[in-house]
Amino acid sequence: MKKIAVVLAGNGVYDGAEIHEATLTMLSIARNGAQYQCFAPDIIQTHVVNHVTGEEMPEIRNVMVEAARIARGNIKPLNEYNAADFDAIIFPGGFGVAKNFCSYAFDGVDCVVIPEAENAIRNTVDAGKPIGALCIAPVLVAKILGDVNVTVGEDDADANAIENFGGIHVKSTHGEIVVDEKYKLVSSPCYMLDATIDQIADGAENVVVKILEMI
Amino acid sequence: MKKIAVVLAGNGVYDGAEIHEATLTMLSIARNGAQYQCFAPDIIQTHVVNHVTGEEMPEIRNVMVEAARIARGNIKPLNEYNAADFDAIIFPGGFGVAKNFCSYAFDGVDCVVIPEAENAIRNTVDAGKPIGALCIAPVLVAKILGDVNVTVGEDDADANAIENFGGIHVKSTHGEIVVDEKYKLVSSPCYMLDATIDQIADGAENVVVKILEMI
Repeated sequence: MKKIAVVLAGNGVYDGAEIHEATLTMLSIARNGAQYQCFAPDIIQTHVVNHVTGEEMPEIRNVMVEAARIARGNIKPLNEYNAADFDAIIFPGGFGVAKNFCSYAFDGVDCVVIPEAENAIRNTVDAGKPIGALCIAPVLVAKILGDVNVTVGEDDADANAIENFGGIHVKSTHGEIVVDEKYKLVSSPCYMLDATIDQIADGAENVVVKILEMI
Repeated sequence: MKKIAVVLAGNGVYDGAEIHEATLTMLSIARNGAQYQCFAPDIIQTHVVNHVTGEEMPEIRNVMVEAARIARGNIKPLNEYNAADFDAIIFPGGFGVAKNFCSYAFDGVDCVVIPEAENAIRNTVDAGKPIGALCIAPVLVAKILGDVNVTVGEDDADANAIENFGGIHVKSTHGEIVVDEKYKLVSSPCYMLDATIDQIADGAENVVVKILEMI
């Protein structure tokens, strides 16, 4: 059975992993006859956002401990990820990707990436295995790899950032994927667009199906 | 367009709403051409569980604020729910149903139910509209209504509790639903069984489809 690592940036769209994108990625993996293992960095979240008000809360939370809620406890520290043990890796989106995996949400193109995320992506590329990136995650991958072809939908600022990193941004709409054959990288805009949950399911499904074809 | 209220007991299987059951209920509602609105009680969680270790954490969290992570911010206090505004109501599972909506996880058959949950269920029954209950949620409904026909899968202790409340428990397996025609109540065991995420999707889908038929 093919085995896919799913990397979570916390638990919740505004400061962690986007829950629908994460859950529906896991669903598509299972529905297509593969297995998943969740990973997250064992680090403190950059901040905690009240998802009712949108305001920062005076709390300290750990990315992996919160992400474990999506994974029902079955999660491993991202620094234990080894591409040799998996057939592919997928990064769902959520602001956590741009806040906890790198500082893009605060520093834009001058962002820095955490070693766990950079190592996971470089290790997967070196092993010649596919990478999936949903929502804002293609920006992280572009920051690390540079000359990628990816999509984040229609957002000009993020498209410019990707091109600033050396990549090419391809516009896309709901459920569509963009495939970078060189890096075996598959991206889909998901909630970067004003989407409904069934459109997220379509995007996650198309990414997973394409990745399974590439394995 | 038919409109279904989805009631969340927090965010995470061990102290809140089970994330997959909640997300996949919302997906099935959208996929079947209906709309959802999330609700949660604006109360403090009974406790906070570290989902990596299973141990209690010395934190204080609010059920609605945490549930808003699943709802992407679009959530209302449960005491604002009015059955007149909706076609049906669905309760996904998770320990939060037995910890935050009632004290069943701690007090068993002697549990007490919070007024918001009891009012939402009684109000829906009085309006003659369908109720969905996933996972452990049928125990809550049985505690409130008494003579229901429901399923929580194969667990004898919970089946006994339901019968103690005056209900009838029907054994079921993955994805199956049990329909109580008198109360227009549809239940499915979901993660009360040792299930995979695609089996949860099946259960949620079958509950939603049956409820839409009953509207």
